[in-house]
Amino acid sequence: MSDSATPTKARRSRGGRAARQAKAASDVEPIVPYLTRNIPYYEVLDDDGLALIEKNADTILAEVGIEFRDDEEALQIWRDAGADVQGQLVKFPRGLCRKLIQDSAPAQFTQHARNPQRNIEIGGKNTVFVPAYGSPFVYDMDKGRRYATLEDFQNFVKLAYMSTSLHHSGGTICEPVDLPVNKRHFDMLYTHMKYSDKPFMGSVTAPERAQDSVDMCEILFGDNFLDPATGQPKTCLISLINANSPMTFDDTMLGAAKVYARNNQACIITPFILAGAMSPVTVAGTAAQSLAEAMAGMAFVQLVNPGAPVVMGSFASSISMQSGAPTFGTPEPALVLYIMAALARRLKVPFRSGGGFCGSKLPDAQAATEAANTLLPTALAGVNFALHTAGWQEGGLVMGYEKFVMDTDLAGMMATMLKGVDLSENGQAMDAIAEVGPGNHFLGCEHTKANFKTAFYRSPLADNNSFEQWEADGSLTHEQRANALYKKMLQNYEAPPLDPAIDSALTDYMSTRKSSFADSNIS
Amino acid sequence: MSDSATPTKARRSRGGRAARQAKAASDVEPIVPYLTRNIPYYEVLDDDGLALIEKNADTILAEVGIEFRDDEEALQIWRDAGADVQGQLVKFPRGLCRKLIQDSAPAQFTQHARNPQRNIEIGGKNTVFVPAYGSPFVYDMDKGRRYATLEDFQNFVKLAYMSTSLHHSGGTICEPVDLPVNKRHFDMLYTHMKYSDKPFMGSVTAPERAQDSVDMCEILFGDNFLDPATGQPKTCLISLINANSPMTFDDTMLGAAKVYARNNQACIITPFILAGAMSPVTVAGTAAQSLAEAMAGMAFVQLVNPGAPVVMGSFASSISMQSGAPTFGTPEPALVLYIMAALARRLKVPFRSGGGFCGSKLPDAQAATEAANTLLPTALAGVNFALHTAGWQEGGLVMGYEKFVMDTDLAGMMATMLKGVDLSENGQAMDAIAEVGPGNHFLGCEHTKANFKTAFYRSPLADNNSFEQWEADGSLTHEQRANALYKKMLQNYEAPPLDPAIDSALTDYMSTRKSSFADSNIS
Repeated sequence: MSDSATPTKARRSRGGRAARQAKAASDVEPIVPYLTRNIPYYEVLDDDGLALIEKNADTILAEVGIEFRDDEEALQIWRDAGADVQGQLVKFPRGLCRKLIQDSAPAQFTQHARNPQRNIEIGGKNTVFVPAYGSPFVYDMDKGRRYATLEDFQNFVKLAYMSTSLHHSGGTICEPVDLPVNKRHFDMLYTHMKYSDKPFMGSVTAPERAQDSVDMCEILFGDNFLDPATGQPKTCLISLINANSPMTFDDTMLGAAKVYARNNQACIITPFILAGAMSPVTVAGTAAQSLAEAMAGMAFVQLVNPGAPVVMGSFASSISMQSGAPTFGTPEPALVLYIMAALARRLKVPFRSGGGFCGSKLPDAQAATEAANTLLPTALAGVNFALHTAGWQEGGLVMGYEKFVMDTDLAGMMATMLKGVDLSENGQAMDAIAEVGPGNHFLGCEHTKANFKTAFYRSPLADNNSFEQWEADGSLTHEQRANALYKKMLQNYEAPPLDPAIDSALTDYMSTRKSSFADSNIS
Repeated sequence: MSDSATPTKARRSRGGRAARQAKAASDVEPIVPYLTRNIPYYEVLDDDGLALIEKNADTILAEVGIEFRDDEEALQIWRDAGADVQGQLVKFPRGLCRKLIQDSAPAQFTQHARNPQRNIEIGGKNTVFVPAYGSPFVYDMDKGRRYATLEDFQNFVKLAYMSTSLHHSGGTICEPVDLPVNKRHFDMLYTHMKYSDKPFMGSVTAPERAQDSVDMCEILFGDNFLDPATGQPKTCLISLINANSPMTFDDTMLGAAKVYARNNQACIITPFILAGAMSPVTVAGTAAQSLAEAMAGMAFVQLVNPGAPVVMGSFASSISMQSGAPTFGTPEPALVLYIMAALARRLKVPFRSGGGFCGSKLPDAQAATEAANTLLPTALAGVNFALHTAGWQEGGLVMGYEKFVMDTDLAGMMATMLKGVDLSENGQAMDAIAEVGPGNHFLGCEHTKANFKTAFYRSPLADNNSFEQWEADGSLTHEQRANALYKKMLQNYEAPPLDPAIDSALTDYMSTRKSSFADSNIS
């Protein structure tokens, strides 16, 4: 028999009954707030290799330095900590940043959700999948590429809420450009709070917007905002503090980081690197620079508030050395990702990287290849906070509706993979093999009957029917099925309950704050 | 800065000159006959887990047994080796198969090509990427899905010859259904011999066709056919001997295996399993059964001719427990693949598995997702002979033209990944980081200038241009670019030189043999 043979018998038998039973089983899905891996990490470098990258990062910190721009308070903090500050350039005694981080940064922390069943553990062997972040445009097959609006933002929050393979509502899922730049953070936060009960991210575009994020969380969480044990706020927000690579932090990001750190809210410190432009063209060079930048940022957070949760981030893609365009889903960034994950484990801090990256303008085969080439390493490397898991299109300029549900399907596959191999007696299935014997089939055996409901990952999008059935169903592409799926999800959306008193307190806060200053689209 | 920012500066600068220089560099590509990995294997089970699977495989061999059907010689061989033969069912004393394999099967061997620069090493840390195998249909975007012909077969051999990321010409790339079933092997073999100089596979559909394959190799290799050191034929063919899972070998496959083994040609012994139908619905059960079947087949080959090269194969996918349809690119088969690769290493035999599987009817996002979800594990697991790397579509029923070049692009990415991380001084790039410093860019630095030509994997298909440029270029999908690429390749094809005397000896052999028996389409 050739490998290509498709067993008609297997294909046809028991389909109807099995299909009905499976549907009944899937009607009530338990909440899985986050994933805990049961498979090893994939490591591309051994201890010597990782130690070399760490040594190089220390050299960068000590000899090249990191600029902290336009923030005198930050420079003073570094002077007080014993760093060598020359103008805005900070040089760090070898080992200082590492020590500051290891002295106080938690290896794992809880991000609270307004529904405590959705609380997530960030760090350790845990992974959370999070929507993409920051695109000015959206795309769907019906209307094409266009500027994002608040309605799009709401739609994606609803889709993320309904996606069992996403554990987080994300942050700036897309930019609602129909709202003023200096006030849209209110509506984004309110959307996460009202339309989802999963954890979400805060605003980082100005220190006062970070404070608004914290203040709205205080309203949302009410009596649950403060931790009774410590008197400090619980960690309800996680926010994205990007380095301005190479080797620079700017005052906007530092301002937001200080607000969050002082309120015990989590910061993800992420060197944002397109290798070849913002870092060397090599994997080892990009990793060393990323580690240096991330350590400087994380150490700064620990100086601002020792013990405040920080996540080591790495966003490293490459550029086309022919055209200069950013590229995604290529092998070199995956190698960087594996290395950075291992370095975060050695530093004992949670790690953020990866996602469903692609450069494609469409939810096509390029998008799918590049997303899989990034999300599989994301899972194997041990990323704890997988921002950009769903929706990322066109290098992050676009949030794609079809891409979003394609990516959540992929994230579901990763969840199954992370569960690993069941070596129990039932997993070994020796009774099934003995029962069936040579030349027979397993479809009707007792073991199969007992296990078929949960046996294999089920894609809501892939078409595995016969060619003839697929033709009869309209010869649809994957993208067309994704288009139908996201629309059906939005039709079926039901909001999680929210206390009306909290809801009006949130809207009151927003209207008071919005009317206290003029609209602006400058920044 | 948001992660989505696309640096216009990086995108625009130096594009023209860099592009021209890169083109010049790529005009002469050295032959890379096979890949040797420089990254670790990914292991999902520890030694205890793997030992458990081995113990279960031994139990299957000892207590359930394997049927060797309609081949009295095979049964006598097993009786002579000390197995317990009951009718056609063979039960093996624990450890017998393993001992037979480890006593004589080579851990690594050379498959010779008519161009010695194309000889491949199968086993160890080496990987070869091989076209898909066995589909009755072909697909392209222009003409859709249709039965394959000899012209299609020739086209795919040409494409495989031109693909730098494929190391092998494959075997039954597609079934030339315009030729009689009992004679088409002649034309397939001749096509591999004439239109390519890469190594290829032999016919397995009847023992006499296996002998034809060997005889034509003797003509093709001429004075180089026999190894002067041993007097035995060199290994010029590798052929696909599938188990008829569960736990059965049939006389057709056994007959071909005997011919190849006695002629020192390589056999890949592959349990062909759609889990849930031909094996239990669990990963551990499927792995144990696969190992048992593969060990029985490999041990049989060693009994026929001790030392004949064998490869342990594993083809394991799953079925939809709702519809019974085969599914591809899902997480469970990837887990099986990692386990089987580790088991082959413990057994010390080369390993074949994986490829670019998909169930999709089209070269769309489903196809791309599923292919990447299989080929990345193929590379990480340490597959030595990656059959089905390029072209596999619709569960193997279809060889796809666009899918073929999409898959070779993916295989190219895997080749870059397998090279691993350059930790040399140049790879560390500390001079570049020191030269550029905070806030500047790396595009013009000395290190970038010295390395940009080979810096990152370059996809011939992905579009990473700006949205506006992409629109100006016709708003093409990945599939459409793939369609254009394979046509361009076929236009540019030039056959490798073949000695005219050998060519006419081959065609003489074929016409003599073809006229010696009547056409038949029975089998």
